[in-house]
Amino acid sequence: MQIQEGRVFIGRFKGKADLLAELTELCKKENVKLGVFSVIGALTCAKLGYYNQAAKKFTDCVSLDKKLEIASCTGNISLLNSEIFVHAHITLADHEGTAYGGHLMPGSKIFAAEYYIKELTGTTLERTHDSETGLNLWKS
Amino acid sequence: MQIQEGRVFIGRFKGKADLLAELTELCKKENVKLGVFSVIGALTCAKLGYYNQAAKKFTDCVSLDKKLEIASCTGNISLLNSEIFVHAHITLADHEGTAYGGHLMPGSKIFAAEYYIKELTGTTLERTHDSETGLNLWKS
Amino acid sequence: MQIQEGRVFIGRFKGKADLLAELTELCKKENVKLGVFSVIGALTCAKLGYYNQAAKKFTDCVSLDKKLEIASCTGNISLLNSEIFVHAHITLADHEGTAYGGHLMPGSKIFAAEYYIKELTGTTLERTHDSETGLNLWKS
Repeated sequence: MQIQEGRVFIGRFKGKADLLAELTELCKKENVKLGVFSVIGALTCAKLGYYNQAAKKFTDCVSLDKKLEIASCTGNISLLNSEIFVHAHITLADHEGTAYGGHLMPGSKIFAAEYYIKELTGTTLERTHDSETGLNLWKS
Repeated sequence: MQIQEGRVFIGRFKGKADLLAELTELCKKENVKLGVFSVIGALTCAKLGYYNQAAKKFTDCVSLDKKLEIASCTGNISLLNSEIFVHAHITLADHEGTAYGGHLMPGSKIFAAEYYIKELTGTTLERTHDSETGLNLWKS
Repeated sequence: MQIQEGRVFIGRFKGKADLLAELTELCKKENVKLGVFSVIGALTCAKLGYYNQAAKKFTDCVSLDKKLEIASCTGNISLLNSEIFVHAHITLADHEGTAYGGHLMPGSKIFAAEYYIKELTGTTLERTHDSETGLNLWKS
C-alpha cells in the first residue's frame, strides 16, 4: 500500500530503561501511529521471543543475561486495539561476536540506544487477529 | 550518488509465498525501479546464498528447514538486464535465538512478513557484470 | 527529537577499501553532518568491536579472517569533536550461514558494498563523553 511520509525523529534513549517500552512510549508521546524505525546501541540483558508457528503462540523465549551489542533493531509502528503498538525484531551480539536474533520482548534493558523513527501518514494500519497464523496482522 | 525520493509503501505479504518473489513482484507491479526496503516477520524455511569470492560464484547455499524469525531483511531495488531486480540480505533466528545470515535466495517461504519500501527516483541504476568480483554491480 | 529530511544517496563503494573509512569519507565529501544509513554486500575480512560495559571501553575485538556476507549494516552519522563521525553496527554471515555481529571497526575490508544514506537536517547532533557509560553519546 502506498502511503505518505510524515515526521522524522532521531535521538537517544536513556540508559537502564526497557527498549521496547521506550520505543512505545516515544511513539505514544509523539503520536506516531504509523511508521518504521531503526535502533543501534547496546543492552545489559535481552529477552527474545520466538513464535511457535504450529502452536500459534510465543511459546519460546530466550533470555540472554549478558551484555550485548544491538547489531540491528528494525520494525514498524501501527495500531493494535486502537493503541500505538511497536513491532520490533532485533539482532544482538556478545563479546565473542556470536549473533542472536528474534522478536524484541519486554525485559531487554538499554545500556545505550540510538533511534531513528520515520512516521508514515495518510492512513493508519490496525492489527487484527489472523486465524491462519494466530498473529495480530494487518490486512494483506 | 545523490538521488531523489519517490513513493513509500508499507504492508504485508501473503503467507506461504516465496519472500524474494513477493518482493520482486510487488516492485514490478508498482514499477519501483530504484529503492530500498526493510522486512520483518517469520519464515517457514529459508535458503541463504553465500558468494564464493575466490570462485566468483554462489557455490554455497545454506538451506534451513525450520521455522525462523526474520531478525532483519534489508536491501535495494535496481535494474538487471533492464528488469526490476531485488537484492536482499537477511538475518534469521531460530527458537534458541541462534542467528543465521546471508543473501536471500528463492526458496525462503513466508509465514508472515511486513515490508517497508522506499522508492528513489531521478535516475535508474543498472547492474552490469563486474569482472573484478564476478558480481552484477552498479558502476562505482 | 524531530528533525528535517535532507538529501539521499545511493551507490557502491569500491572494492578492497575499508568499509568504515569509505562510509566516513563519503559523508565528509558530501558534508552529511547528520543522517542514517544502510549497507549490504560482502567483506573479505572483518573486525568487530564489543564494548566492555563494566570497564567502560572497547576491550574486546573480534577479528574474522574470512569472507563474509554483510547481512545488515546500519547506523548513524553525527559529529564528534566537530568532525563527521559514523557509528555503524553490522551483522555478518559466513559460508555456513553462521551469523556474527558487533560494532563496525576499522579493518573490515570491502569485497562489494552497496549503500543508502539519508541525510537529516535542521540541527546537528554532537557526541560528548557520557560519564555513566563511558561512551561518546548525544544528549538524551
